Amino acid sequence: MEWPHKDLLDVGQLSREEAEHVFRTGRYFQEINARPVKKVPTLKGRTVVLFFAEPSTRTKTSFDMAAKRLSADTFSLAKSGSSLTKGESLKDTAWTLQAMSLDALVIRHQASGAAQYLAERLECSVINAGDGWHAHPTQALLDAFTLYQEWGSVQGKTILILGDIAHSRVARSNVQLLTMLGAKVRLCGPRTLMPSAVGGWPVEVGYNLDEAVRGVDAVMCLRLQLERQTSCLFPDGREYARSYCLGMRHLERANAGAKILHPGPINRGLEISSDVADCPDSLILDQVASGVAVRMALLFLYVTRKEVE
Amino acid sequence: MEWPHKDLLDVGQLSREEAEHVFRTGRYFQEINARPVKKVPTLKGRTVVLFFAEPSTRTKTSFDMAAKRLSADTFSLAKSGSSLTKGESLKDTAWTLQAMSLDALVIRHQASGAAQYLAERLECSVINAGDGWHAHPTQALLDAFTLYQEWGSVQGKTILILGDIAHSRVARSNVQLLTMLGAKVRLCGPRTLMPSAVGGWPVEVGYNLDEAVRGVDAVMCLRLQLERQTSCLFPDGREYARSYCLGMRHLERANAGAKILHPGPINRGLEISSDVADCPDSLILDQVASGVAVRMALLFLYVTRKEVE
Amino acid sequence: MEWPHKDLLDVGQLSREEAEHVFRTGRYFQEINARPVKKVPTLKGRTVVLFFAEPSTRTKTSFDMAAKRLSADTFSLAKSGSSLTKGESLKDTAWTLQAMSLDALVIRHQASGAAQYLAERLECSVINAGDGWHAHPTQALLDAFTLYQEWGSVQGKTILILGDIAHSRVARSNVQLLTMLGAKVRLCGPRTLMPSAVGGWPVEVGYNLDEAVRGVDAVMCLRLQLERQTSCLFPDGREYARSYCLGMRHLERANAGAKILHPGPINRGLEISSDVADCPDSLILDQVASGVAVRMALLFLYVTRKEVE
Repeated sequence: MEWPHKDLLDVGQLSREEAEHVFRTGRYFQEINARPVKKVPTLKGRTVVLFFAEPSTRTKTSFDMAAKRLSADTFSLAKSGSSLTKGESLKDTAWTLQAMSLDALVIRHQASGAAQYLAERLECSVINAGDGWHAHPTQALLDAFTLYQEWGSVQGKTILILGDIAHSRVARSNVQLLTMLGAKVRLCGPRTLMPSAVGGWPVEVGYNLDEAVRGVDAVMCLRLQLERQTSCLFPDGREYARSYCLGMRHLERANAGAKILHPGPINRGLEISSDVADCPDSLILDQVASGVAVRMALLFLYVTRKEVE
Repeated sequence: MEWPHKDLLDVGQLSREEAEHVFRTGRYFQEINARPVKKVPTLKGRTVVLFFAEPSTRTKTSFDMAAKRLSADTFSLAKSGSSLTKGESLKDTAWTLQAMSLDALVIRHQASGAAQYLAERLECSVINAGDGWHAHPTQALLDAFTLYQEWGSVQGKTILILGDIAHSRVARSNVQLLTMLGAKVRLCGPRTLMPSAVGGWPVEVGYNLDEAVRGVDAVMCLRLQLERQTSCLFPDGREYARSYCLGMRHLERANAGAKILHPGPINRGLEISSDVADCPDSLILDQVASGVAVRMALLFLYVTRKEVE
Repeated sequence: MEWPHKDLLDVGQLSREEAEHVFRTGRYFQEINARPVKKVPTLKGRTVVLFFAEPSTRTKTSFDMAAKRLSADTFSLAKSGSSLTKGESLKDTAWTLQAMSLDALVIRHQASGAAQYLAERLECSVINAGDGWHAHPTQALLDAFTLYQEWGSVQGKTILILGDIAHSRVARSNVQLLTMLGAKVRLCGPRTLMPSAVGGWPVEVGYNLDEAVRGVDAVMCLRLQLERQTSCLFPDGREYARSYCLGMRHLERANAGAKILHPGPINRGLEISSDVADCPDSLILDQVASGVAVRMALLFLYVTRKEVE
């Protein structure tokens, strides 16, 4: 398959066949990552810039590792203290980067649409590593990849997304991708953390965790994005945990062997209890491993536009 | 040509023949940068340290890319929070770095003469990436390289440098290099931003932009270095822009096809209007591309002392 | 020799034969570092993470250079601003890193025992780059390596460790390693900076520098760790320097050709006078060079568990 896309802005750009091609490519790189020599020469001499206007060591390290294991050269730009961006518009920053002959720009930005804005102006590939409350496509792809590794497919599975749906780009991208891949998605969280537009989404919505968890095949907990909350209606942590912290007693109502996911870093005892986070059905660390493999697949596909040989 | 210099401290060290050898080498690397695989193995196993005591993402990234595209290993040191430099003199820092077997030290420092001080004490090559108000030789070389790419030479051309001349190491190094290469240089800016020693420079000086721009072949705008100004006579931005922001109406008085340069990042509407910055004769983004190529040429020449094969 | 250890937590883990094997391996890499092409492919495709919860540019750069000269890929994590660690326990950070397929984790941490805690939980090698007041094994190994380069061995030599013994993990690790290698160790410093447990250590203790320096073959000055002092009994710098700043007059009482060491960065005129720091018998810069070579040896041995061919 020749990869038809220049940019990865949101999961909505991908067909089911394309998403599954990403997963197949990811499996190839996951095998590479299990070897002592975790490196292939495919992106040697290519330039990948990691532009993280919002801090995120975890996602940035995952992309950095992915790029370096493909033998690309990586360069990190942060917003703070950056003379590249100080007093400069995002457009001028983008043009400046392009003039340095980039192959891919990985961008995280607090403004929804920042990645798309750059994608329209740059010749290089733009990979959205999270923009505002809008989208986080690589997280959704690595989450689905992790479930594919377990199940082979998510067709017909019921997946509960739990927590602060309103402020979560992870939730938005996962709803889109999982439903496109044939899963049934259920959302659960406090009313104040449910987006007003949720009525139009292809999901079931519940506010009671005991009920919402019934019959699900996986629970995807979200991180409480305390820094993105603007509503004074937001419950305090203790109040939230009393109703929505995922515990073993909830899992008894789920299907046997239901899988647990969390994008990390986890707040133990707030979004998820320690015994759930560390139980045999927890895929939280698999997600981390999947992250590197899926990002290798994405960088490979978007930069070379080719299939791994 | 065997490269005769250990260090690049100022453009005054270079003969015209040597500067033009840098440009020829830069053209070689600019072709490399246009390929998908932007990498040559010439500096593999060499160690380049980027020591930026003043922040400058743009210049640092340009050097970092240049070094990595030559396959060198790079290491960044910042002043703030650095235990290497904390409580340590510049000399001790330098000796420590040397003991780690450097091949080149790229240094930006707020103290004029810092690069020379280190060059005298270190066996490795020292590349001045800007020291105080003194010199910024790699910027001048990339500016001239950009004009050579357009014109083949700057012989007999008239080039206007516009803005805050007094606080600009870019202006100082460009005056020196462009006149040595046979260009006529004109300076224009408010009296309070003109250095007192300018009477001894080989340039014409004007204070009225409408007059100064007449018959020039290129205008090189400077960035207002607000952080380096010490004079209370400095005009505010709006006042400055009224008289010295380069607009399309000024360019009508320049020679047809006059080129526009700016070292970046640009303050649109302050030093330069948006329509000028984005016009077809603007070389601002070419300068960014030239920066990587010229720094590859310089690192190559100063580290290997040889000619590209 | 097949290297039997997974982790380097403290020098007490090593036998004399093993320590000397590290030195032999270090000599091999020191020769590599003296070449123009300072690079071997032995750790190509391996992943080394530098996790410095306490800032230390010097040690981090030394490890980073060591890893890159072995062709490993390196990734730096800092504590501050790191979403990897924010709100996350050290255990969760460790598991996350492991899921990314590390080969070695180099950790500096303010908590004594942090390295051991991680070593017990991670499959990859953990190298302690300094934990609280506890241990700094790579510094002790590079110090002893530096003396081996001079003398071939430290058997029967008398070595004075001078300064703030109480707060120094460097002193602790050096006492352990040097006595194991057959040297006699003497400690000297103000009573308020001598650990209460020193009576049980295999050392001589003195409080008068004029007497302590008599007949020694080397003086190892310590850095005043102003940030780690908790005692109000601590003398001010001027008072300290009057009694304990190592000067040329002290060296007259030492054995002829006594060597001078200091882990750096040095505070001239506080712990050591400038003429001593710069005298021909000073090994301070040799220690810096040794640092890169010994860390190459350690990364090589702990990651490959093999001998250099």
